Amino acid sequence: MSLLTIGTVAFDTIETPYGKAERIVGGACTYISYAASYFIDQINLSAIVGADFPASEIEALKARGVNLEGLAIKEDGLSFFWEGKYHLNMNSRDTITTDLNVLADFDPVLPESYKSSAYVMLGNLTPAIQKKVLDQLDGSQKLIAMDTMNFWMDIAMEELKEVISRVDLLTINDEEARQLSGEYSLVRAAQKIFEMGPKFLVIKKGEHGALLFHKNDIFFAPAMPLAEVFDPTGAGDTFAGGMLGYLAKSDDVSFENMKRALIYGSAMASFCVEKFGIEALKNLSQEQINERMKQFSLLVHYTL
Amino acid sequence: MSLLTIGTVAFDTIETPYGKAERIVGGACTYISYAASYFIDQINLSAIVGADFPASEIEALKARGVNLEGLAIKEDGLSFFWEGKYHLNMNSRDTITTDLNVLADFDPVLPESYKSSAYVMLGNLTPAIQKKVLDQLDGSQKLIAMDTMNFWMDIAMEELKEVISRVDLLTINDEEARQLSGEYSLVRAAQKIFEMGPKFLVIKKGEHGALLFHKNDIFFAPAMPLAEVFDPTGAGDTFAGGMLGYLAKSDDVSFENMKRALIYGSAMASFCVEKFGIEALKNLSQEQINERMKQFSLLVHYTL
Repeated sequence: MSLLTIGTVAFDTIETPYGKAERIVGGACTYISYAASYFIDQINLSAIVGADFPASEIEALKARGVNLEGLAIKEDGLSFFWEGKYHLNMNSRDTITTDLNVLADFDPVLPESYKSSAYVMLGNLTPAIQKKVLDQLDGSQKLIAMDTMNFWMDIAMEELKEVISRVDLLTINDEEARQLSGEYSLVRAAQKIFEMGPKFLVIKKGEHGALLFHKNDIFFAPAMPLAEVFDPTGAGDTFAGGMLGYLAKSDDVSFENMKRALIYGSAMASFCVEKFGIEALKNLSQEQINERMKQFSLLVHYTL
Repeated sequence: MSLLTIGTVAFDTIETPYGKAERIVGGACTYISYAASYFIDQINLSAIVGADFPASEIEALKARGVNLEGLAIKEDGLSFFWEGKYHLNMNSRDTITTDLNVLADFDPVLPESYKSSAYVMLGNLTPAIQKKVLDQLDGSQKLIAMDTMNFWMDIAMEELKEVISRVDLLTINDEEARQLSGEYSLVRAAQKIFEMGPKFLVIKKGEHGALLFHKNDIFFAPAMPLAEVFDPTGAGDTFAGGMLGYLAKSDDVSFENMKRALIYGSAMASFCVEKFGIEALKNLSQEQINERMKQFSLLVHYTL
């Protein structure tokens, strides 16, 4: 089935304890699309870049089967730019620069062929833009998922809640789940968030894995313990891209299948963090993914 | 098989966001013994208390089948006392009072019948005391496990390393694993710690679960997501007690069986935190434990 991905396509300058990468390609929509491309070839990307975005990177996305009809290229603008520096523990980071550039004018107009995408992944953007995308869909979607962040909870909570009320699956981190719900316990937070609309909630905990909530069911997907985490940038988006890509491929939104989707998401994220930026996501083989999935099975499965 | 448990038997005053409990019974050895008592009835406890320790609490331990021949009662002394206050997130706490009292003179002399205990759990104590216990064992042990903490790494690292070199299984938390090994990555930390002697390493991550390392194998046991965590005190010791109790019962130290032991440990810890102190561990039924084990299976198992 088809997957609509929307979010930033951007440049990042990233410093981690392992080194620094200057102006490499990043952005939520980029990570989501690359991760999903290992599962499906009907990825409808909607994003905006400036004239500075390299043609070679556009070709690389196309080569992964990503449909770029919805990629706006603003010839007189610069692409969104983010610069961040990670702390030694890699769990926290300082934002050094955020240049919105062309993102300030992003007014996504979906191509006709995008409007019936069966699956949708709304990457982290202003709630107003996420809402505009929802308004253009034809209503035939099997599952609509969205990501967001604490920043929008701070400055646009009501508008954010309106968007949340219209999606099936919300992916946020543990602190965001607490802020959104006002509950410290993640179990209670999930129940509060279900009252806001979504039927599924994924709480991302970075190196501590991710929790899937649905009604009274809970599933836990660990993060793979790795000898080296080079760069955590994009891991959450890669997780979401792998998850939605698998869901679109299998076209099954049962809780049992969502479990598998979470593990595929964790597997894709485990590759992402092993190199800078999207580097690790450009040339994975199906064998590498299968091998990582086996490692996940060994990591958590036991018999009584 | 038999299990030797050694550590503190004490009073705790605990304040959490849910309330305050004054001078309730606590101590690593207490939690370990209660948790293990749901698996085996040959628990050989070695600890020291003062005259203030209630006879009713001694009877309660006996009623759980715990052998108290090795419990020294110092008639002119007071029991070890700890007072702590948890922060809102329950992951960190401030120690308000630590009164060593009789613990300052603890010189464990193992009863003859203890020396051949097949399994040993050395609770967190000074490395010097842990060493004295090891020196009295008859060498027939199947598995010796120990817990420790950052405090001993700060003030007695060399002595601690000597004890670590003599045990099979070390249980510490993630920050302690990093401090002990000098490695930030837990995967690398485990390899460094194996070079120090232990064949098995359990890294406890509190609400984020626990990792078991052995050679190049890794297993992850989650913590059960709970609607309410009342009091995290003793969760790590309860985890260790459940794990060692199950190992002693099954008498199998293969990696596959260790996995099960970790899940039993997590299950026991999940009960512990639902009430203050040892309250939840006093009267569990086998059905409650089986039910919780089923919940763990639902939490992590998936099929591809």
